[in-house]
Amino acid sequence: PPPPPSAPPPPSRPPLSAATRRRFGPLRLRVPAENRRQAFVLRGARVLSNARGSAPGQLFLERGRALALLPGPFSEMAPMFLEAVLPALRKRFASRLRVRRALFRFGGISESAADERLRPVLRASRGVEFTLLAGPGLVELHASASAATARGAQEALELVRARVERRMRGHLCRHGETLESALGEALLQRGWRLAAAESCTGGLLSKRLTDVPGASRWFLGSAVAYGNALKRSLLGVSGRTLARFGAVSAACAREMARGARERFGADAALSITGIAGPTGGTKAKPVGTAFIGLSLPGRTTAFRRVSPGTREGIRERTVSAALWRLYRELTRIPGN
Amino acid sequence: PPPPPSAPPPPSRPPLSAATRRRFGPLRLRVPAENRRQAFVLRGARVLSNARGSAPGQLFLERGRALALLPGPFSEMAPMFLEAVLPALRKRFASRLRVRRALFRFGGISESAADERLRPVLRASRGVEFTLLAGPGLVELHASASAATARGAQEALELVRARVERRMRGHLCRHGETLESALGEALLQRGWRLAAAESCTGGLLSKRLTDVPGASRWFLGSAVAYGNALKRSLLGVSGRTLARFGAVSAACAREMARGARERFGADAALSITGIAGPTGGTKAKPVGTAFIGLSLPGRTTAFRRVSPGTREGIRERTVSAALWRLYRELTRIPGN
Repeated sequence: PPPPPSAPPPPSRPPLSAATRRRFGPLRLRVPAENRRQAFVLRGARVLSNARGSAPGQLFLERGRALALLPGPFSEMAPMFLEAVLPALRKRFASRLRVRRALFRFGGISESAADERLRPVLRASRGVEFTLLAGPGLVELHASASAATARGAQEALELVRARVERRMRGHLCRHGETLESALGEALLQRGWRLAAAESCTGGLLSKRLTDVPGASRWFLGSAVAYGNALKRSLLGVSGRTLARFGAVSAACAREMARGARERFGADAALSITGIAGPTGGTKAKPVGTAFIGLSLPGRTTAFRRVSPGTREGIRERTVSAALWRLYRELTRIPGN
Repeated sequence: PPPPPSAPPPPSRPPLSAATRRRFGPLRLRVPAENRRQAFVLRGARVLSNARGSAPGQLFLERGRALALLPGPFSEMAPMFLEAVLPALRKRFASRLRVRRALFRFGGISESAADERLRPVLRASRGVEFTLLAGPGLVELHASASAATARGAQEALELVRARVERRMRGHLCRHGETLESALGEALLQRGWRLAAAESCTGGLLSKRLTDVPGASRWFLGSAVAYGNALKRSLLGVSGRTLARFGAVSAACAREMARGARERFGADAALSITGIAGPTGGTKAKPVGTAFIGLSLPGRTTAFRRVSPGTREGIRERTVSAALWRLYRELTRIPGN
């Protein structure tokens, strides 16, 4: 094995890293001493800029060994690893095997259920490595085929692609990196504007839609009608519906979606009303029950969705179900 | 040292853990095989129930050693560690020192700035251990004083308390566990209902308010007016204000807050309008600029807040600033 890298030299003390200056400079904020201290780097390090925080990463590549120093919180460390360290390692330690990669995204299915359904494909595909990851809204399958030639790797990957697409029919997401951005792209393709109306998710549906930069091109806004008074005044839900079926009902979800679409001047609207818990459940409508409404030109529907988990998990899963339902309606890809 | 624990026995296979049955049972969902597999436990293990997922934790305590098996995602592992493993370790490995603990929460200040401001207190307090943690909205300081007697530990802690409270004046949060629940308690104490109006935060303000179970007792709802048309129709922002000052202005924030308070029948209202990025910034209003409006009976104000970071970080910090401002207005604790 090669000798270990030489001991890192003592810290150098630049007055302040360029990244930290950029971060605080234009905002004319005072830079706390703690953030100045975070900007110190070791001599000889390649500085990895940290777009998400003030402490930069540092990378040493020497005599066949790599040493990376990445700062604290996962949300800052992980992007630096993926964007800077991993490419540097790949470049430095490239193997002679040819590798081809593919990424599949699935909506409307849990990680466990996707795992179970994909198992035969994963077993049948020798020489291909798989990683299944659950994000909010979509499950991702990363496939990596290795062979002596690029063509061999590509062929192995195409076989996997055909098998995965057959097996996961009805769950394939073919736009965007997230469910939210996929939905945004599908709306943009139609030139449609979306509106929303939410009760138990309390703004999470709108928050997730507006996580996408530029969402204003396809999202108009939302009424977070947490109490029944706002369901009536903002969305036009009828008192009769609330009295007869309650706020957690398909009828209420339909009126919320139709109200948002018509009153906000949208082409499509999503609504959610349900019981996020921890209290408020009944035998007929246990905690986790939600009705998701969908209003399109000439057609307004609603369906019931029951999600397990905590208040937080129920709200996230209910929003994902609503987004996926609209995405499928908008795309109607053959076989999807 | 004591001998290592004996090798764990082979897995036992109960048909399904009680926790998993509880999780899926009432919802009448099919339990995927993957979740059944997750329910397997080793013989002799103390099963740690997992309220947030389907895979239980397992704990072995034997001859002075502890072995804990905790399932995958951090959101499931961490609560199991805190709620079951840590208390068991404390009980089993208790020291003879007496320990007294205190927890302080600070709002309206970053972790780095709190660290800098607290440093003299932390340095001056021998025999007391400190941990500073940043959550969304509040920074937490955990203090743990150890002494030979309970009274000694208590006295050391009281000294710390006096120093911390003097040093952090203006940033002490004295309600709730989170900023959102603190605000909810302060509203409940006054018997007030809150409404909201948001633009660049796109629902995050409402989402965070409704993260608190029972938020319907003090939160009516919100208008997520992402486009200008909804700012006018839902909140009554004047076309003249939008034309003269733009949507990202103190005047617009004030009209949004006043509109939400008056139209939704609330006692108080918060509004946010700004530029979350990554694009849309100007020299006068760089990315991260937001105007936060606050409408109380007889008084409507707005202030400018500039936050560093990504789109996500800017949105979270802007919401925290808005919540903290209202909390301080409502509490007006002497010296805070």
